[in-house]
Amino acid sequence: MAGNTFGQLFSVTTFGESHGPALGCIIDGCPPGLALSEADIQSDLDRRKPGTSRHVTQRREADQVEILSGVFEGKTTGTPIALLIRNTDQRSKDYGNIAQSFRPGHADYAYWHKYGIRDYRGGGRSSARETAARVAAGAVAKKWLRETFGVEITAYVTQIGEKEIAFEGYEWIAQNPFFAANHSQIEDLEQYMDSVRKSLDSVGAKLHIEAKNIPLGLGEPVFDRLDADIAHAMMSINAVKGVEIGAGFGCVSQKGSEHGDELTPQGFLSNHAGGVVGGISTGQDIHINIAVKPTSSIATPRRSIDIDGNPVELATHGRHDPCVGLRAAPIAEAMLALVLIDHALRQRAQNADVSVATPDITRAK
Amino acid sequence: MAGNTFGQLFSVTTFGESHGPALGCIIDGCPPGLALSEADIQSDLDRRKPGTSRHVTQRREADQVEILSGVFEGKTTGTPIALLIRNTDQRSKDYGNIAQSFRPGHADYAYWHKYGIRDYRGGGRSSARETAARVAAGAVAKKWLRETFGVEITAYVTQIGEKEIAFEGYEWIAQNPFFAANHSQIEDLEQYMDSVRKSLDSVGAKLHIEAKNIPLGLGEPVFDRLDADIAHAMMSINAVKGVEIGAGFGCVSQKGSEHGDELTPQGFLSNHAGGVVGGISTGQDIHINIAVKPTSSIATPRRSIDIDGNPVELATHGRHDPCVGLRAAPIAEAMLALVLIDHALRQRAQNADVSVATPDITRAK
Amino acid sequence: MAGNTFGQLFSVTTFGESHGPALGCIIDGCPPGLALSEADIQSDLDRRKPGTSRHVTQRREADQVEILSGVFEGKTTGTPIALLIRNTDQRSKDYGNIAQSFRPGHADYAYWHKYGIRDYRGGGRSSARETAARVAAGAVAKKWLRETFGVEITAYVTQIGEKEIAFEGYEWIAQNPFFAANHSQIEDLEQYMDSVRKSLDSVGAKLHIEAKNIPLGLGEPVFDRLDADIAHAMMSINAVKGVEIGAGFGCVSQKGSEHGDELTPQGFLSNHAGGVVGGISTGQDIHINIAVKPTSSIATPRRSIDIDGNPVELATHGRHDPCVGLRAAPIAEAMLALVLIDHALRQRAQNADVSVATPDITRAK
Amino acid sequence: MAGNTFGQLFSVTTFGESHGPALGCIIDGCPPGLALSEADIQSDLDRRKPGTSRHVTQRREADQVEILSGVFEGKTTGTPIALLIRNTDQRSKDYGNIAQSFRPGHADYAYWHKYGIRDYRGGGRSSARETAARVAAGAVAKKWLRETFGVEITAYVTQIGEKEIAFEGYEWIAQNPFFAANHSQIEDLEQYMDSVRKSLDSVGAKLHIEAKNIPLGLGEPVFDRLDADIAHAMMSINAVKGVEIGAGFGCVSQKGSEHGDELTPQGFLSNHAGGVVGGISTGQDIHINIAVKPTSSIATPRRSIDIDGNPVELATHGRHDPCVGLRAAPIAEAMLALVLIDHALRQRAQNADVSVATPDITRAK
Repeated sequence: MAGNTFGQLFSVTTFGESHGPALGCIIDGCPPGLALSEADIQSDLDRRKPGTSRHVTQRREADQVEILSGVFEGKTTGTPIALLIRNTDQRSKDYGNIAQSFRPGHADYAYWHKYGIRDYRGGGRSSARETAARVAAGAVAKKWLRETFGVEITAYVTQIGEKEIAFEGYEWIAQNPFFAANHSQIEDLEQYMDSVRKSLDSVGAKLHIEAKNIPLGLGEPVFDRLDADIAHAMMSINAVKGVEIGAGFGCVSQKGSEHGDELTPQGFLSNHAGGVVGGISTGQDIHINIAVKPTSSIATPRRSIDIDGNPVELATHGRHDPCVGLRAAPIAEAMLALVLIDHALRQRAQNADVSVATPDITRAK
Repeated sequence: MAGNTFGQLFSVTTFGESHGPALGCIIDGCPPGLALSEADIQSDLDRRKPGTSRHVTQRREADQVEILSGVFEGKTTGTPIALLIRNTDQRSKDYGNIAQSFRPGHADYAYWHKYGIRDYRGGGRSSARETAARVAAGAVAKKWLRETFGVEITAYVTQIGEKEIAFEGYEWIAQNPFFAANHSQIEDLEQYMDSVRKSLDSVGAKLHIEAKNIPLGLGEPVFDRLDADIAHAMMSINAVKGVEIGAGFGCVSQKGSEHGDELTPQGFLSNHAGGVVGGISTGQDIHINIAVKPTSSIATPRRSIDIDGNPVELATHGRHDPCVGLRAAPIAEAMLALVLIDHALRQRAQNADVSVATPDITRAK
Repeated sequence: MAGNTFGQLFSVTTFGESHGPALGCIIDGCPPGLALSEADIQSDLDRRKPGTSRHVTQRREADQVEILSGVFEGKTTGTPIALLIRNTDQRSKDYGNIAQSFRPGHADYAYWHKYGIRDYRGGGRSSARETAARVAAGAVAKKWLRETFGVEITAYVTQIGEKEIAFEGYEWIAQNPFFAANHSQIEDLEQYMDSVRKSLDSVGAKLHIEAKNIPLGLGEPVFDRLDADIAHAMMSINAVKGVEIGAGFGCVSQKGSEHGDELTPQGFLSNHAGGVVGGISTGQDIHINIAVKPTSSIATPRRSIDIDGNPVELATHGRHDPCVGLRAAPIAEAMLALVLIDHALRQRAQNADVSVATPDITRAK
Repeated sequence: MAGNTFGQLFSVTTFGESHGPALGCIIDGCPPGLALSEADIQSDLDRRKPGTSRHVTQRREADQVEILSGVFEGKTTGTPIALLIRNTDQRSKDYGNIAQSFRPGHADYAYWHKYGIRDYRGGGRSSARETAARVAAGAVAKKWLRETFGVEITAYVTQIGEKEIAFEGYEWIAQNPFFAANHSQIEDLEQYMDSVRKSLDSVGAKLHIEAKNIPLGLGEPVFDRLDADIAHAMMSINAVKGVEIGAGFGCVSQKGSEHGDELTPQGFLSNHAGGVVGGISTGQDIHINIAVKPTSSIATPRRSIDIDGNPVELATHGRHDPCVGLRAAPIAEAMLALVLIDHALRQRAQNADVSVATPDITRAK
């Protein structure tokens, strides 16, 4: 496959450039009978969309989704679901200065050399705008997972630049522009982000993603382990540079007697595994951390080269997120949902026959 | 696919359990005309094999590989290459005590609930023994990459438990039992590992993997990015809990002006990207870190349950690696090689026509 | 994959129902640098579209295609190409009578039982209308094949019902409503089709598809042989019940001394193979025949059952093709193009390195 | 994928050359809990193996299969099943004369030009010997289908050269060397085959394959239709040049009123569809015909060229089947089984939730 499809049984193929006429996706393999309307998808799109606070890009997109197929009388039919989002606020002039040169840290350089041609308007296909299609597809996956197993997926920002953010409660996540599970540090974060923006620079971020009510037995060893597919999914998000499951890099200095989660008849006594052992879900909650690099398009002048190899100094003006990680929470949730639904269907293929002595995969922790 | 195949154009399907008659793999898609003999593969297998020092499992396996197909008169023919490794030192009695209960932190529990049946002898399919097949396949990939582009892949251990290991030179890696690029700390590490072993416990490890002479343009956005496939590959290795590319989690507290690698006509001035931007290789060296959890099979008694849900206390005796990360270097190298060759072939499919204004993908940094 | 994607390196995922808002596809893997506009695609769509003569369905669709992505300044960029065709002439009332019962020979019954839900309007996803998306994708493939290798693909109808149609020249194909390479029998065929229509019945058809200037070496034994993928492609077209390559069923009564195509330094002396041996193209022309069954939606009353299992008598009124094979020529051409481009890219992946002693795959017969 | 894998959820990857050390396959995705021993597989291998009568090649191969993995205590575990068959009767000298030239009608020419290298011994990978691995894998699929749904698959030869063979009863198939469901014509066929052999020539054959007790709902429109995958599977068998489903090419001259199978509450009144409409199984029996070309390796001298392009006259001596179709019945059965099991698992993925109003796919006709 040429790279724009994710998933095997619930497979999502996306298309679209930042400044093209539209973006969207085709979902193939959504089980029939799921109640689905555009409103089910719109809410997640609205969480991701630009322009919602001064701390994100000021591009104004309604990100309004249209279902083109696969739904009949309000229910999925088992046939492909095409989702379309028209771009409405392209300003190609903003990007004129980068048509002939490469932004440091940006995909410009790699796209140009890979393809020999590049839609430079707004980063073209490499723009984070592409993730709108993922969020749309993820909303469908989330709904099916919730209705079938009660799965709940939540992502939140745990660090912005050097600012670590304490967990104070899920209820705060939707109440600040940072997707922070926090109330007490918001004012400090606002000031911090203002200072970053004013310094014409950008910062990285760290996010935590977790999922509850996971069926036991998801994941296909040895290569398509659940955690391997999660790592694939997370690292496929623009700007992500690191992924951890459970204890993550902390496991390096752990002893086996500390890391291994003990079991009792009442359940596991700890969750260093992050919900996955041997590449298979245990029914415990899934815990993931990801690192998001600072935005590469910044207004600070930097050394680079143009497409002819000549040295240039480049400062990127226009509308950019000073911390691209701030909008990553709905995207990470969507990607986790895509992994989970795909593996739920794969597991169902293998073990649906309940006369075989296998657990009901609906059995949650 | 059912999970045991890695790669799309250079695809490797593995089989085999720890205590079954054999393990091995089929490589499908190896380009024709590559000189290949069993000796080319054996050297990497020997680096991975057990029993080479007191710090790894004492199981004695020659891990001798037989090429069953796909090679004629010393060259690959473009048809599938089957590789076979017979198991010779199974001692199933060692594992009798775990047939009816689940080791904390081990895949036992998940396999049992996923499949409803489990080859408990030596961990069955979940054993790290499975990685011998990966190393064998990786040796073929490495050879083709080296001969075609000059790619060199090197992995080494940078931390064992709480002991960070300083980089002192590639030449030391093969000269100590820890795959450490270090000379001065080896005695200290020997004592540390002896103490871990004597305490009937295990420790985690951290490895660094790097690759030089990488063609520009490898990686298929948006989902099959080079870094996403690397993350998938690394997290598919037994016991890996974290993956970083380039600056990794360090990018969270970086500013954009620091993280983005500036370009000059002479090349990049830094490599925080780790050789990949926008999911595509830039021709810079690739840099990866992985975290390997401590071995779950330890002789320290721990709480668990049996297959009927009753509480048990479990200590795993027998032959186990006290630090499974110590043998992970050849495996990580193999997995990176599998990712790189697959993407090299994918890129060649798209841009072989040199009349198209695209770079020769043989052009290394 | 869930069934709506064709091809591995040039992969096409289609969506859309007969009476939904739109249909279309995403092409992933089109090589960059191909000049492409909507006009390139529209011409093939116009050949397939309904309403062009009294011998096909009277549904009026402009089948106007919009390119949503993947093309920049008139050239493909290597990123996904999304194609959108809005439906404009749905008349859902035409189909009201079949919502609750199953047409004999139609996909109604199977869809209902497979999915438990069915978009009955115009046959929903099972409608031949779906093939518009294939024709659109095929037009892109054809253009690349033509410009890269000079490949020319031509399909024509060789039999309608009991009427065999003599080959009189390619120039006639576009000059009659039957896609017949014939001039002298057209009036007879017009009368025949009029009589079929008046008798409220339908007939089958047979088509021949051929391709010239085929690169040598396309096809991946053993399962993804070129002929196997052609058979897959052709049988995936609505209503096709048989596929032959070269001598086809005629080979059964041939002797080996007759069937095997002799070679001389000047080329092959015959082409019973139809351009493929051992699953690999030889550079000879490709020859294919397909059988298309009579349309199942006919106005003649027939016995059937409703969704509750009760007996009904069913006559399908509304707008239907009395011979669905009449519009199959552009579809079969498109499918062959999709097979050929995919295998051309796969072959290029394996053998692009011209220092390997392999033939230039651009070398045509 | 590189072409040697068949199936998506029950996927089979084969390897091996005619005169290499071994051939075999890995089955990935076999559901756990199936009782399986080597004897279950051996019986089908014995039906296919060479040397069983004077009418097939005299090569003597025991075709003894060894299960290397995936089975524990007599049951499949859900992990990959590797099957190994050692070659024991290679006589490479038999093939010396074809190392430098191409047999008319044989894959020699295409392999040479595709790969630039060729294992000419016994046809290498292009030999029908490769099908032993398919038959082995098919035996596993057949067993699961039989035990899960009661599926029964039967293939028999219906024509040899110009000799049509009347159906006289399934019981005769195993009682003659022709896989003919016939008793009265056997002597005539023996004489016919003797004359073909003595004339140093070969003939084609036609086979019928049918399957009973098929679950309703198998097949994934639009590209992975059940019939499309069957066509793919059948045309992937060496020497097959044509495939028909149900009425096949006969449908061309049928009227819609004749072809469409009428339904009553008691069931279908006919089966022109061959068990598949809209690409989905209806629960009716599946009916397939295939055409197998005459063996290309014949002892009659023929014109050809050598690898340098010089004209040669070539007669192939050694051990060859005078009618390769005679051993095709177990192979065709195996391929149909591989298609059916794959689609059964795919369907189960989509509809396992019996609370959805879909039919139990275990419900046979």
